[in-house]
Amino acid sequence: MNAESIRKLFEEVRAGKLSSDDAVARMRHMPFEDLGFAKVDHHRALRVGMPEVIFGERKTPAQLAGIFKRLAEHGGNVLATRADEKQFAAVKKAIRGAEYRELARAIVLQRDHKIYGKGVVTVVSAGTSDIPVAEEAVATAEMMGNDVQHLYDVGVAGIHRLLANREALAKARVIVVCAGMEGALPSVVGGLVGVPVIAVPTSVGYGASFKGIAALLGMMNSCASNVSVVNIDNGFGAGYVASLINRA
Amino acid sequence: MNAESIRKLFEEVRAGKLSSDDAVARMRHMPFEDLGFAKVDHHRALRVGMPEVIFGERKTPAQLAGIFKRLAEHGGNVLATRADEKQFAAVKKAIRGAEYRELARAIVLQRDHKIYGKGVVTVVSAGTSDIPVAEEAVATAEMMGNDVQHLYDVGVAGIHRLLANREALAKARVIVVCAGMEGALPSVVGGLVGVPVIAVPTSVGYGASFKGIAALLGMMNSCASNVSVVNIDNGFGAGYVASLINRA
Amino acid sequence: MNAESIRKLFEEVRAGKLSSDDAVARMRHMPFEDLGFAKVDHHRALRVGMPEVIFGERKTPAQLAGIFKRLAEHGGNVLATRADEKQFAAVKKAIRGAEYRELARAIVLQRDHKIYGKGVVTVVSAGTSDIPVAEEAVATAEMMGNDVQHLYDVGVAGIHRLLANREALAKARVIVVCAGMEGALPSVVGGLVGVPVIAVPTSVGYGASFKGIAALLGMMNSCASNVSVVNIDNGFGAGYVASLINRA
Amino acid sequence: MNAESIRKLFEEVRAGKLSSDDAVARMRHMPFEDLGFAKVDHHRALRVGMPEVIFGERKTPAQLAGIFKRLAEHGGNVLATRADEKQFAAVKKAIRGAEYRELARAIVLQRDHKIYGKGVVTVVSAGTSDIPVAEEAVATAEMMGNDVQHLYDVGVAGIHRLLANREALAKARVIVVCAGMEGALPSVVGGLVGVPVIAVPTSVGYGASFKGIAALLGMMNSCASNVSVVNIDNGFGAGYVASLINRA
Amino acid sequence: MNAESIRKLFEEVRAGKLSSDDAVARMRHMPFEDLGFAKVDHHRALRVGMPEVIFGERKTPAQLAGIFKRLAEHGGNVLATRADEKQFAAVKKAIRGAEYRELARAIVLQRDHKIYGKGVVTVVSAGTSDIPVAEEAVATAEMMGNDVQHLYDVGVAGIHRLLANREALAKARVIVVCAGMEGALPSVVGGLVGVPVIAVPTSVGYGASFKGIAALLGMMNSCASNVSVVNIDNGFGAGYVASLINRA
Amino acid sequence: MNAESIRKLFEEVRAGKLSSDDAVARMRHMPFEDLGFAKVDHHRALRVGMPEVIFGERKTPAQLAGIFKRLAEHGGNVLATRADEKQFAAVKKAIRGAEYRELARAIVLQRDHKIYGKGVVTVVSAGTSDIPVAEEAVATAEMMGNDVQHLYDVGVAGIHRLLANREALAKARVIVVCAGMEGALPSVVGGLVGVPVIAVPTSVGYGASFKGIAALLGMMNSCASNVSVVNIDNGFGAGYVASLINRA
Amino acid sequence: MNAESIRKLFEEVRAGKLSSDDAVARMRHMPFEDLGFAKVDHHRALRVGMPEVIFGERKTPAQLAGIFKRLAEHGGNVLATRADEKQFAAVKKAIRGAEYRELARAIVLQRDHKIYGKGVVTVVSAGTSDIPVAEEAVATAEMMGNDVQHLYDVGVAGIHRLLANREALAKARVIVVCAGMEGALPSVVGGLVGVPVIAVPTSVGYGASFKGIAALLGMMNSCASNVSVVNIDNGFGAGYVASLINRA
Amino acid sequence: MNAESIRKLFEEVRAGKLSSDDAVARMRHMPFEDLGFAKVDHHRALRVGMPEVIFGERKTPAQLAGIFKRLAEHGGNVLATRADEKQFAAVKKAIRGAEYRELARAIVLQRDHKIYGKGVVTVVSAGTSDIPVAEEAVATAEMMGNDVQHLYDVGVAGIHRLLANREALAKARVIVVCAGMEGALPSVVGGLVGVPVIAVPTSVGYGASFKGIAALLGMMNSCASNVSVVNIDNGFGAGYVASLINRA
Repeated sequence: MNAESIRKLFEEVRAGKLSSDDAVARMRHMPFEDLGFAKVDHHRALRVGMPEVIFGERKTPAQLAGIFKRLAEHGGNVLATRADEKQFAAVKKAIRGAEYRELARAIVLQRDHKIYGKGVVTVVSAGTSDIPVAEEAVATAEMMGNDVQHLYDVGVAGIHRLLANREALAKARVIVVCAGMEGALPSVVGGLVGVPVIAVPTSVGYGASFKGIAALLGMMNSCASNVSVVNIDNGFGAGYVASLINRA
Repeated sequence: MNAESIRKLFEEVRAGKLSSDDAVARMRHMPFEDLGFAKVDHHRALRVGMPEVIFGERKTPAQLAGIFKRLAEHGGNVLATRADEKQFAAVKKAIRGAEYRELARAIVLQRDHKIYGKGVVTVVSAGTSDIPVAEEAVATAEMMGNDVQHLYDVGVAGIHRLLANREALAKARVIVVCAGMEGALPSVVGGLVGVPVIAVPTSVGYGASFKGIAALLGMMNSCASNVSVVNIDNGFGAGYVASLINRA
Repeated sequence: MNAESIRKLFEEVRAGKLSSDDAVARMRHMPFEDLGFAKVDHHRALRVGMPEVIFGERKTPAQLAGIFKRLAEHGGNVLATRADEKQFAAVKKAIRGAEYRELARAIVLQRDHKIYGKGVVTVVSAGTSDIPVAEEAVATAEMMGNDVQHLYDVGVAGIHRLLANREALAKARVIVVCAGMEGALPSVVGGLVGVPVIAVPTSVGYGASFKGIAALLGMMNSCASNVSVVNIDNGFGAGYVASLINRA
Repeated sequence: MNAESIRKLFEEVRAGKLSSDDAVARMRHMPFEDLGFAKVDHHRALRVGMPEVIFGERKTPAQLAGIFKRLAEHGGNVLATRADEKQFAAVKKAIRGAEYRELARAIVLQRDHKIYGKGVVTVVSAGTSDIPVAEEAVATAEMMGNDVQHLYDVGVAGIHRLLANREALAKARVIVVCAGMEGALPSVVGGLVGVPVIAVPTSVGYGASFKGIAALLGMMNSCASNVSVVNIDNGFGAGYVASLINRA
Repeated sequence: MNAESIRKLFEEVRAGKLSSDDAVARMRHMPFEDLGFAKVDHHRALRVGMPEVIFGERKTPAQLAGIFKRLAEHGGNVLATRADEKQFAAVKKAIRGAEYRELARAIVLQRDHKIYGKGVVTVVSAGTSDIPVAEEAVATAEMMGNDVQHLYDVGVAGIHRLLANREALAKARVIVVCAGMEGALPSVVGGLVGVPVIAVPTSVGYGASFKGIAALLGMMNSCASNVSVVNIDNGFGAGYVASLINRA
Repeated sequence: MNAESIRKLFEEVRAGKLSSDDAVARMRHMPFEDLGFAKVDHHRALRVGMPEVIFGERKTPAQLAGIFKRLAEHGGNVLATRADEKQFAAVKKAIRGAEYRELARAIVLQRDHKIYGKGVVTVVSAGTSDIPVAEEAVATAEMMGNDVQHLYDVGVAGIHRLLANREALAKARVIVVCAGMEGALPSVVGGLVGVPVIAVPTSVGYGASFKGIAALLGMMNSCASNVSVVNIDNGFGAGYVASLINRA
Repeated sequence: MNAESIRKLFEEVRAGKLSSDDAVARMRHMPFEDLGFAKVDHHRALRVGMPEVIFGERKTPAQLAGIFKRLAEHGGNVLATRADEKQFAAVKKAIRGAEYRELARAIVLQRDHKIYGKGVVTVVSAGTSDIPVAEEAVATAEMMGNDVQHLYDVGVAGIHRLLANREALAKARVIVVCAGMEGALPSVVGGLVGVPVIAVPTSVGYGASFKGIAALLGMMNSCASNVSVVNIDNGFGAGYVASLINRA
Repeated sequence: MNAESIRKLFEEVRAGKLSSDDAVARMRHMPFEDLGFAKVDHHRALRVGMPEVIFGERKTPAQLAGIFKRLAEHGGNVLATRADEKQFAAVKKAIRGAEYRELARAIVLQRDHKIYGKGVVTVVSAGTSDIPVAEEAVATAEMMGNDVQHLYDVGVAGIHRLLANREALAKARVIVVCAGMEGALPSVVGGLVGVPVIAVPTSVGYGASFKGIAALLGMMNSCASNVSVVNIDNGFGAGYVASLINRA
């Protein structure tokens, strides 16, 4: 133990076995990080209510189940993203309480039901094809202890659908907006509200949408000042950032 | 003269100097286009009310004035796009009636004031920085004989500005929408109306807008089905296409 | 009817059944667009003859058939794009009159045979590989009530094939041009006619064609002023825009 | 008040001064947003402490001074970004209290000194060349009523400089990180803290940095989950988003 | 028939039924291309020794065999590129003499064995993976009547292999060079010879080779002045251009 | 001297001072290139009629004049491309016979007027803006001893201008086609002739033309098989390749 | 045989059948490379300890086994990269001692166990997904005779994991760093050490990572001066370069 | 002073004023890096013979001179890259011994003339335009204590120039190769030697060279295994990496 090795050093000095100068010299050669863990703990302490997260893609059912089980032993919520039914079957065998959220392609184990977020996280999607990404954001934010609401299929080409839900938007403390194609929805939503908007470009689109690049560029260039952006299809990241904002 | 050479052929046949078969054979070796001008004329006939157009960029004031004067002799409207004040000074000296539209950076000579378009062409801009491109579209459509209206600074981040003008949009027979940054406005406008929308990406923007590419991609991927797109900053092209639609 | 429901509200107030305050409160909870529907109705009125459209890609046969059936109940034409034979089989079971247009990969149910367009919509393709995209444009325009003609395999490397059909082009009121590879055909067609040309880049090509980007860029930079562009392979969008122009 | 104007309409109907039909007709001609303004007001109410903002680039000194003066009449803080010394001279003449922040290239008029943010906003820059962007974020956040601290020149190639400031990072409620070149700093900072990190790619770099694209891509792909991104060199946007988070 | 309709016109003039002027006028309204076929024939005459070519990709075996058979009736050589074994089986059934060149993925029917080229066409490949593209060039050039030689696996990282074959290069009248990865070979070959070099980038490579783009850019920027470039993997085009040069 | 050192080796063998085996062994350690120069001479012999070429860009007038003078001493033609008037003034002082071709931005010194090319090199340009690039090709081909003809301003949007010149095209043994914007002209020209076409994309264009990339991609994807491509604006390279083809 | 032909020349000179001058003249016409093999040998001599390497991708098991066996006859180490289990089965049958390194996807035959490298080669990976690329570097460096150590899963978002291993890094004479996503790890490692760092971008990532391009750009723009970069996923190249450095 | 603060802690423990546990606890809250400087020193110790380096671009002459002077006080070599004559004049005034290397655009102050490198660093350039980048590498390597040789203007289009210098290449312990345009030279050099090659793409080129991207891609995809790459025009980085390799 690191703290222990330093304590020993102090003991030796106190016992007169070592001069202060020699102790300092010896510390110079100790590994850098021996004292650093306090901060790491402090950091972890901050993470109460944060789920342990596994990225499921490219993992075998057995691998995923193994990791899931180990993390489940920590006692908190566990979230596996980008998971399929086969992976879920393997997890389910190991952990009874695990559930599969099909739309979100997420496996969740929720044991901590406390709400840590101070307000509502609202997740908005432009089209029905963007829903899987939106649902990943929903699952993430829920597992991190938020009151989550969603508003789907309110894309800009039928602007009245969005406007009909202005009341719902107005209740949010932070908003996640998922959109593919031209990625214009975050700008419109951003202009309607005074809270932070996390934009998620999705890879939904055809032709010159370039698997989300058109949407990504659109969002980066949003004319609304309250918009920041995460990676293409990164519903998890958006839900995570939104949760941090909501508990701040 | 081409028609002349063919007439001679007919004369020779009529005079019995040439058999019909030989005449046909000789025509086979005549240049292809000798007879083609009828169509070209027909084509030109279609263009009544279309201005003669000069692309001003990279031309010296003297060059521009020279071309402008020559075209002015045809008697119709003349339009020079991407022109600056120095070029205008040179044109003005040669042609009294020429006017400079500063915002549009266009020199116009309007002699045919007849309205050829069947309805209203409405030109919309997202921000004030997009106005020069919008004004180029306005100047083009006006010189081509249209009733043109404009609606500026109605970008998507303040959607109520656009919605407050739905009546105006509803009157249009064709709409030109100029927008930079994320280029989302055509999608929203397209969703509000049932007429063709010509989208013009502008090079307005910063950082990852890439001089209009973000807007161009956004417009190409519009989720509104009535949107088609012209090149970046191509206000002239948009005004031209809109005019053709309006006189169709 | 919306206006009706508001009128009723006024009537109830007038009849003393409802206080003004309660009426205002009730209006607050009415769907937003209830007041907006004058416009929406007007808009919908414009859409007579417009098919109800389903984007077939990524939908299961059952899902597609379900949506198709529901839309068919509206009584007008129904169009499903990007559909395959399996999806058609499911639709056919539910709706007898549905037909499959194999080349266009479209399922159509045509009940409104009225011609709404004022002229001919001509759809041109550069090569035989561009025909599926062209056929999608044809199917769309036909379902929207147009007299549609097509002209296939008239690419620029054999320019005489195109020129041999100038008469056909001259009859069109609006032209859709589908081309992959270098995407040059819209420029040439645009130069031959005086009507609007809707260019559709197709993903046909090899090597540095980049799935339609080369064609898209070529069309964006067309030296013909009457060309506007829709997304790669977006035959539906082109047919839709052309139909709007043709009924304007 | 809007609701009021509608209530009046009801009153008039109830009083028999107006038929229901006339009332409906009159509502059709009311500006769309008359019912929406509750939200707009509410929205504006949220904006207490938000500066009026002018984008200075491409404006003449006279234009900028004119707009600045008009906004200053609203009584709150005024911020002009991307402004140069000449523009400042013009503003200074009109508004005594205006100050120029040279590094940030911002003109500020601070009259509301109240702190609206609940915690500290920390602005971090990777290199000295990123400081102008960072300072724009600082100026924005200060004008929006935040306690702002900064930490400059702590790039990843000398990681000890960053680590030496972990205590400072730990105090922040939200962090803005500006970095050019490979844009790696947000990932490292994100891994050290449990609060939201707003990443700003800067156009600082050479060769294959492509004016900020390399940094932008790096940040989009951050392996830290608490990072979201704004546009290249968009210090204003980052400061704005951070302020919203901090006052949430 | 076009020629017929013109002959009739001449007959009418000869018979005095029509004045020459009226005949000219009527021709103005005839379709443009009626007389144009002479040139097309002339063009075709130039093509002696050129194979009829079918692009095999995406065609069913039945389709390919059908087209192949029809072209075979013209009596010259027939070439189908990008063809697989199944397609060949179908062709073989229809046309006995057809052969499959496996490496080139080409089906050939050679009936005209005359050498039209004036010198040797040498086809060079950088690596063994580039050989299929090189072989397509070889098959094309052979079917077009050339003496073709090849030089494979002489990439720039082992420059002595190339130099050991300088005598062979010196004999060529035109050289085709196929290379993937960095695409450097055409520059080196171009520097060694004084004849035209046709460069073919191949899609061979990994990582940042981007399916041939790196090679394409390398070749476009060749520091040897005698290099021109065709599309990625376009062995057919290179063989075709080389053949034209060799018979010039 | 290399040849000398080998001759000495032979002398020693002849004199019996060295065994043949030892001589071979010693040669193994001699530098590789000692015997290689014969080929280089042979190569140079091929270059009769090829001008000595200087790339003028970024050279001072003094530097350019110095190099020009030195090359002029070889007695053949000298060509400096991308040269301006100041550079020409310096060259003119040193070499009386030098001439400046303004459009081509080339300084030429023509002393060898012999025609080495076997046919006509025709240089075609799409628009007037492409003429400088075309003129560079003309100057290069002329200095290399070709009968050069040109055909300017025959872009695809007015296809009749090109068709009116089919006779001229038919005379060429090799054709250079310069075009910016969508770069479609080489495909059309390629389809009209049976000789090699060298395509030169030019950086002429606006918006999404990306300084010649759109044209370059268009040309790479040409549907005409007789087209190969050189770098953007590389009129020199095109003239050089065309000259090699014409003298082959 | 080349040496033989030269020996004959010497013999003829010695026998007086040929003058020295004539012999020199004849050598001028001999192929360049006849004497060049000495250097090639010398080059090969340098390669002691370098494995014979086969790129396994796209080779059939039989092909790979055949090449492997032939190379194994040279007596040194043999390495096949990008190989799968089926290929290994075929190799194993032919060569008993061959082993399969599953993670590295490499087949190795190690017969030369001598350590040629002067220090330790340390291979670092950012995440677990980068391990296959890292293992390819490890296998390569081991087969080239190096003492190789590895340090996995020490990405920048958990910087303490890296710092906890600074001692290990300090021992390295050259370091290979494999990272996907934002590719930031080489900069951080580069800043911690004073030895060369070879960076390998991996194709690990999602959305806008573009299969390694984001990482590649990040590494190219590293703010640490001791970083150079190889191609995406090119673990072999990194291990090879590192080995050369380590044995220098 | 950090060490001092720790020594005090030890003193307090030794004096019995503080328990060991309390001391450990207090250390937990000390800034992390207080003990870390040993490693930094150690790191710096490694850097003997490394020059202090200033990036000159965008610095005023006064700023550069100030930094230069301060660094000069450390007693070792000082190097300022990307510096111009004005900056040099300012430096020269402050530091007599400073010299300006015009081609390299570098200001150097060399006081440590010891050779730290174990072998020769050879810097190769493809064309004369690449020399400034090459000279920056030369200056860097010389200031870091290396025996540096250079080989300029040996590009691949005249491969004999390179081969004529194989002896020179064979002497190098590490080679830097600078090339623009297609960037092919590193592959050829890499194939000729058995030592590490550091490739530097330069921004030299025209048209589709994209300011060095074509060269960068070419080098990333080098078919020679001993090549690694630094950023475009980064002669300093290449010289730095080469020096580290040479002193390893």
